[in-house]
Amino acid sequence: MTTPEALVELDRARPGLAGQLTVALREAIVQGRLVPGTRLPSSRGLAADLRLSRGVVVEAYEQLVAEGRLLARPGAGTVVAPDTGATQRRSGPPDARSSAAGPAVQVNPSGNGLRSGVPDLAMFPRAQWRRAYERALSRARDADFDYGDPAGAPRLRTELSNYLGRVRAARVDPADLVITTGAAQAFSLVAAVLRSRGATTIGIEDPGSVAIRVHFEAQGLRPVPVPVDHEGLDVEALARTGLPAVLTTPAHQYPTGVVLAPRRRAALLAWARTTGGLVVEDDYDAEFRYDRDPVGCLQGLAPDLVAHIGSASKALAPAMRLGWLAVPPGWRAAVVAAKTAADIGGPVLEQLAFAELLADGGYDRHLRRSRQAHRQRRDALTAALRRYLPAARISGIAAGLHLVVELPDGVDDEGLADAAQRAGLMPVPLSRLRLAPGGPPGLVLGYAANPPAELTRAVRTLASLLPPLPDPGRTR
Amino acid sequence: MTTPEALVELDRARPGLAGQLTVALREAIVQGRLVPGTRLPSSRGLAADLRLSRGVVVEAYEQLVAEGRLLARPGAGTVVAPDTGATQRRSGPPDARSSAAGPAVQVNPSGNGLRSGVPDLAMFPRAQWRRAYERALSRARDADFDYGDPAGAPRLRTELSNYLGRVRAARVDPADLVITTGAAQAFSLVAAVLRSRGATTIGIEDPGSVAIRVHFEAQGLRPVPVPVDHEGLDVEALARTGLPAVLTTPAHQYPTGVVLAPRRRAALLAWARTTGGLVVEDDYDAEFRYDRDPVGCLQGLAPDLVAHIGSASKALAPAMRLGWLAVPPGWRAAVVAAKTAADIGGPVLEQLAFAELLADGGYDRHLRRSRQAHRQRRDALTAALRRYLPAARISGIAAGLHLVVELPDGVDDEGLADAAQRAGLMPVPLSRLRLAPGGPPGLVLGYAANPPAELTRAVRTLASLLPPLPDPGRTR
Repeated sequence: MTTPEALVELDRARPGLAGQLTVALREAIVQGRLVPGTRLPSSRGLAADLRLSRGVVVEAYEQLVAEGRLLARPGAGTVVAPDTGATQRRSGPPDARSSAAGPAVQVNPSGNGLRSGVPDLAMFPRAQWRRAYERALSRARDADFDYGDPAGAPRLRTELSNYLGRVRAARVDPADLVITTGAAQAFSLVAAVLRSRGATTIGIEDPGSVAIRVHFEAQGLRPVPVPVDHEGLDVEALARTGLPAVLTTPAHQYPTGVVLAPRRRAALLAWARTTGGLVVEDDYDAEFRYDRDPVGCLQGLAPDLVAHIGSASKALAPAMRLGWLAVPPGWRAAVVAAKTAADIGGPVLEQLAFAELLADGGYDRHLRRSRQAHRQRRDALTAALRRYLPAARISGIAAGLHLVVELPDGVDDEGLADAAQRAGLMPVPLSRLRLAPGGPPGLVLGYAANPPAELTRAVRTLASLLPPLPDPGRTR
Repeated sequence: MTTPEALVELDRARPGLAGQLTVALREAIVQGRLVPGTRLPSSRGLAADLRLSRGVVVEAYEQLVAEGRLLARPGAGTVVAPDTGATQRRSGPPDARSSAAGPAVQVNPSGNGLRSGVPDLAMFPRAQWRRAYERALSRARDADFDYGDPAGAPRLRTELSNYLGRVRAARVDPADLVITTGAAQAFSLVAAVLRSRGATTIGIEDPGSVAIRVHFEAQGLRPVPVPVDHEGLDVEALARTGLPAVLTTPAHQYPTGVVLAPRRRAALLAWARTTGGLVVEDDYDAEFRYDRDPVGCLQGLAPDLVAHIGSASKALAPAMRLGWLAVPPGWRAAVVAAKTAADIGGPVLEQLAFAELLADGGYDRHLRRSRQAHRQRRDALTAALRRYLPAARISGIAAGLHLVVELPDGVDDEGLADAAQRAGLMPVPLSRLRLAPGGPPGLVLGYAANPPAELTRAVRTLASLLPPLPDPGRTR
């Protein structure tokens, strides 16, 4: 019997004690401080030692059992599971060795240091999801196993419509909502319908996501860059193009993190109203905000002008492939027809499980917990940047799962990113996200996928790869 | 405490006692002979009463708990669940009332009498699937929650490749296999790649599936009919068209049930080899065969010429949306690119759960069990047809989940199908599946979705809707 209480540091001032305990125990297992076969105290015993309610310990144990990191054996207590490899990816760099090894480059062996666009995959709420799935399975009617509504399980569309109204200030009739295989399929469906209505182009933000373009190009739409400035999408520039549609990220522009300014929002909707153009709103990470009031989505201001796209990829995990698309009523039939032609509808049981998770508040609880973890990580990353890269200008930190550092002119951000990749880091160079030439060099740094200590090490590594930088930077 | 042993009739000569017991208890619950709140005997007690091993009773109870039809309460035994509506769809017609009600038309209130294209949705193996999903969830590595391989989870592709080799004599390299959202998405991906390579048409079988055409048309491919005769697809007619690809159902042609004759198989592959045309093999219900040796799939004869498409929609349930597409090596990159553009890949956890079900033999066991049920239902349907519709000529009974009855010339099969639909039946008129004019009238009758007694009643209803028919029919 080990005394994991010695391994656990809890911050009782912060909420989410079960989450903190889960993280602490998980780290202890991953780092080998709790070895396979170790028997843990009873939930009652550990709760008493740590002065926690027993439910908190039960929740943490349950999550780690669902992750396969603990085994619960009736009559034999709870033990650390044999190492199946499930935990290997998370092991940190061998600190002592790397600091003794001459050059200051510290390799991140997981290869995902500073990666953006994904949450911490170890935080997937396995126990909660397992329970939601079981409930969905036992509550499903036989008819639920049939070919379903191509737009998705009605129960999920209702729950999601409520959720989007509550959290994103969206105004979505469940009848206008289509459940998709991630946001990716939502882009693909919108593109197919635009193409079928004669469009051959779509505006995309510059700088903006590169990966997203394939979904439009495959449907025969050519992406046309529209510039982004410190107020977000340049709507006057958009108006000059005559484009039939534009893809935008108003709540937290990717990659700059800029919030679309109020007068720009009004101008964008006026553009849509006067030209008949479609605003495609990619609400990719809007659940995560830290130091500001929530920015409601555009769709809520004009449901008849905006196609709204979201997913659970950042809040749960990309592997779930749970996305959604809310369209103006006049687009409903065409989008459902496109979904039918694409795959006749998505898997029903996981849709029903997601509905269960939304209905019982489990999704909200998980979001609150991950928001706390993300804020802590963002703070660790910005602190490390101010210390080790004082010349970098940091922006976009108020929300999302990444920030941007602008580097002094002349720095080769592509080359820096390549060198970083060899050291196990995954920063994205700003210049790779620009379609038009110009603009300062910089890096997109994700902070959701790595614990604070890893983020600090990653920034030190990054700093060691840069030539000395002149000016102290500013944060905005 | 009730004595359900009085409600249960088991045929000990047949294997699958757990399945038989499950069906018997389910029917008793659905028909109200076991009412909500009824406490069932312990598994030990019922096993002793019925002279079964206890494991058989446990398996049946577990399945019904997973279906939500029984509740297992620790310390309080197993009771029949409150009626949540989950069971209502399955209730049979009120026999006494309908036979007393003048006209012989008996309404099937579930509205799915004789429906083809779906299995019995009540037979979905909920308990087995729940266990497979839980195993997948606890065995998944953190990295499995990331954006995965667009082609699908490697573990599933390996298991499926083995399964298709063993059961369908396919020769599939897991690298050439793409997991799709049902067979529907597989058609859509093949169509997208054909179109990107310049094709504008694809051959489809006449008669053949109507619903399938949308997946090709949406990608800009025009379906062109190729006739089917008593040996299957007419390859000489195909050769005269100059088409770049053809969709075919060689193991059990839809709807006729004809097996593609050996010399036609050879001719079809020769056509593909000499013209460079692609054979798209829709292996939609080939797991189910009754009185004949298995017909291996075409793909196994020529993996470099055939794109092979299958799904778990008939064997598990359509709502799972689990399908697959095996392509010739030269098509691999293009198909994976099309899948990436469509949705970047499908949901990973259910893919891993399906891999678990394949790996531990659960899928095979479920197939064996459903094959027995389907054979029994097919026998009930053919017996009823011979008794109540002796003039109908029955074909396509050796395999699959449906058969075809040809009706004497002059019968209006569309009108008959419409009348049947008003009586709660879903026969498909042959003339609706034909593109070229001509051919005898007839009906496609499914037998998988209804228990034997319902099938018999449905045929009586059907017979009552027809004018008297002259000649006794033949079975082939």
